[in-house]
Amino acid sequence: MAPAPITPESSGTTTPTGSTATSLTKAGIEHTQPNSNGSTESLAPLKASSMTINLTNTPRPVPAPDSAETKAQKTCTDHMITARWTASHGWEAPELKPYGAFSIMPTASVLHYATECFEGLKLYRGYDGALRFFRIGKNCQRMRKSASRIALPDFEPAELEKMILALAAQDGAKWLPKDTRAGGFLYVRPTFIATEEALGVQRPKEALLYVIMACFPDMSKSLADPAPPALKGEADGGSKSQTSGLRLLASSEDSIRAWPGGFGYAKVGANYGPSLVAQGEARARGFDQVLWLFGQESYVTEAGASNFFVVMRSKDSGKLQLITAPLGERIILEGVTRASVIDLANERLAAAPTASESGLEPVEVVERRFTMPELLEAQAEGRLIEAFAAGTAFFIAPVALIHFRGGDMEVPMDGDSGRYARCFKQWLVDIMWGNRSHEWGVVVEEKA
Amino acid sequence: MAPAPITPESSGTTTPTGSTATSLTKAGIEHTQPNSNGSTESLAPLKASSMTINLTNTPRPVPAPDSAETKAQKTCTDHMITARWTASHGWEAPELKPYGAFSIMPTASVLHYATECFEGLKLYRGYDGALRFFRIGKNCQRMRKSASRIALPDFEPAELEKMILALAAQDGAKWLPKDTRAGGFLYVRPTFIATEEALGVQRPKEALLYVIMACFPDMSKSLADPAPPALKGEADGGSKSQTSGLRLLASSEDSIRAWPGGFGYAKVGANYGPSLVAQGEARARGFDQVLWLFGQESYVTEAGASNFFVVMRSKDSGKLQLITAPLGERIILEGVTRASVIDLANERLAAAPTASESGLEPVEVVERRFTMPELLEAQAEGRLIEAFAAGTAFFIAPVALIHFRGGDMEVPMDGDSGRYARCFKQWLVDIMWGNRSHEWGVVVEEKA
Repeated sequence: MAPAPITPESSGTTTPTGSTATSLTKAGIEHTQPNSNGSTESLAPLKASSMTINLTNTPRPVPAPDSAETKAQKTCTDHMITARWTASHGWEAPELKPYGAFSIMPTASVLHYATECFEGLKLYRGYDGALRFFRIGKNCQRMRKSASRIALPDFEPAELEKMILALAAQDGAKWLPKDTRAGGFLYVRPTFIATEEALGVQRPKEALLYVIMACFPDMSKSLADPAPPALKGEADGGSKSQTSGLRLLASSEDSIRAWPGGFGYAKVGANYGPSLVAQGEARARGFDQVLWLFGQESYVTEAGASNFFVVMRSKDSGKLQLITAPLGERIILEGVTRASVIDLANERLAAAPTASESGLEPVEVVERRFTMPELLEAQAEGRLIEAFAAGTAFFIAPVALIHFRGGDMEVPMDGDSGRYARCFKQWLVDIMWGNRSHEWGVVVEEKA
Repeated sequence: MAPAPITPESSGTTTPTGSTATSLTKAGIEHTQPNSNGSTESLAPLKASSMTINLTNTPRPVPAPDSAETKAQKTCTDHMITARWTASHGWEAPELKPYGAFSIMPTASVLHYATECFEGLKLYRGYDGALRFFRIGKNCQRMRKSASRIALPDFEPAELEKMILALAAQDGAKWLPKDTRAGGFLYVRPTFIATEEALGVQRPKEALLYVIMACFPDMSKSLADPAPPALKGEADGGSKSQTSGLRLLASSEDSIRAWPGGFGYAKVGANYGPSLVAQGEARARGFDQVLWLFGQESYVTEAGASNFFVVMRSKDSGKLQLITAPLGERIILEGVTRASVIDLANERLAAAPTASESGLEPVEVVERRFTMPELLEAQAEGRLIEAFAAGTAFFIAPVALIHFRGGDMEVPMDGDSGRYARCFKQWLVDIMWGNRSHEWGVVVEEKA
């Protein structure tokens, strides 16, 4: 774990020449080749400290947290960071520059072959006034893993982390003001795309890594309405979920999210686009998300784009268990929230003495395959205690109902959440927003 | 089958105002909304006849067929056709305009969630001087199917066909000259991407359909060197394939291209990016393509991005069979070349009398699952006659060798090709390049 605070190394040359278009065309890339290091033998590594800075001349207004603009999830902050890579030269110097459109050729690999991956993390404005990331190192390491799976070039995760911190340091004070936005957050999206203009199906030889920060609604606060407002038109049954807790529609066998030997573990675009039809159908039928099952056994894998946890009492041992799907088959995303829930449960809920802190019965953490029939049996026998989804976008989201093979299975809740979900959420909130000092909270040193 | 010739309906308004940038940003899209039809109840359909035409002022030179530029697969013709769609208005009027860069927002759906699909077809300059497409209607229908799988909007395939024909009519004469390029082709790439700027994982509300035409090398003529020149640096064993015939590396169990319930049947980007690592490894080991297997039984599915055929004598009946994987599980791309090989075999090779045309023994067409162990057994018993890959890019490509679980299996050839592969290829060449009049050849009426 990186100790807080980390100072972004944004000591590169400042080039405050007005806003320039970001050209991803070949000519644009050649024009901005790094000065030296033209040797193909020693490709230039990604280096945050060589970043150039070009600040905007046209700063934009910050939308209110509950505005339509924020809910549309498309308003980004004043700046972005980009870093180009070519097979012949390696990484160019990253640029912090005004947020704006890219110029990209119609033949670009990313538009045809889904040569793309991304990360999602949040920048939190703490109740103590500090700006923090949560386990940002994990996101940067996963981004490297995703890039490798989708044939994008390698980089040192710590350098990406520095770039993200630099953008947060630049735009955090204005877009997440200390005095009015305590408890708020921005959504940070590192993205990596192959920009090579060539239609051959091959490893891309040109790519662009970029980081943007967007205004996002707090979807964990509005479980009754997790869909962006524009989607609600599709979800005519949306009002059914006015009570809290996610209503999940279990996927049918003719629609699977991921498979062994595939890429379900990586945060590549190819896992998301193909899920939209099933997700749209679920919403149209009044459900919040798809519960992705796998195989004839109906193994439970993920809920929407989040990991899925269930708390139930073991039939054999009588012990209370916190169960989630294992990573071994590589069909599950290795979620940062997932890992954190497991870590916190092991640390604070495993044995009776520490359980006193939460007042909850101890649970044993089990990462294993489990099936829908198992959950149905546990529910029928009163052994099912609660279930929740865990991820960055939806945070800790209690589950109220699972629709499986024509039947509704109600999942127990304690008011608006299960008790374990509530507990994990509070523990995480305390770290993310600085109520409790913890190594997972990485403080951003802001610009004045 | 559409009878030839088809006249593209490019009778839209000509607006020869100099080249304008193609803006995929929200502002750009709003700026060009169709005049009326703002009603959300009656969304405007895709309509090729409403196309506007804006010709280039800066025509570019045509590269030679064997030039490095052609081999790089990125030089496109002078023009492209684009058509925008929004959820609120439906389809805008298509535009035939100068080929050039798009302006796209960093938040565009296609860059994050692989909301993209495409088609690949060739425009042939016949030996009779005519310009032809081959079964173009099939490509347009498949594009619609792919769009549906990846949550992109619907359209009438015949309208896309008219747009493709219009582009071919515009640029064909110059880029595939009648007097010097008989027997040549251009590669046509209809592409469909979600351009909506919003990070929410949801059905896109803005999209762009576009058609470009690129200069492409004839990969079927250079089986010994199917990789673009730039790739040869990676393929240090490339010289091993100097003899003709593809050398395939069977995929291992930890690398699966597609799965039932997934999207292997659709031409979506999400099938291609995730295959690049395995493909790059195959090339680095001196193989031409990956032979994609499925399951513990090692079912043979596809070869690279082509369908795979094998000719072997049945152990049971003693009959000669042309076998390829079935479409029922939807893990196989429904290839146009695949369908054509099957159709031709049924029509011209099924019974003895017609077989006289080719001088070949009749074959029975069988679409069924088959495994690598089956092929190994057939080879050991002398029942394996030949194998070939079939697709648009590689055309009919004979297979010389399959490397499976540490061993090389040689596939019989008759000189530089199996006899059936040679026969199918010649039959298709005759249709594509107009040696033989056939309903599959769709003649393009060129501009003067």
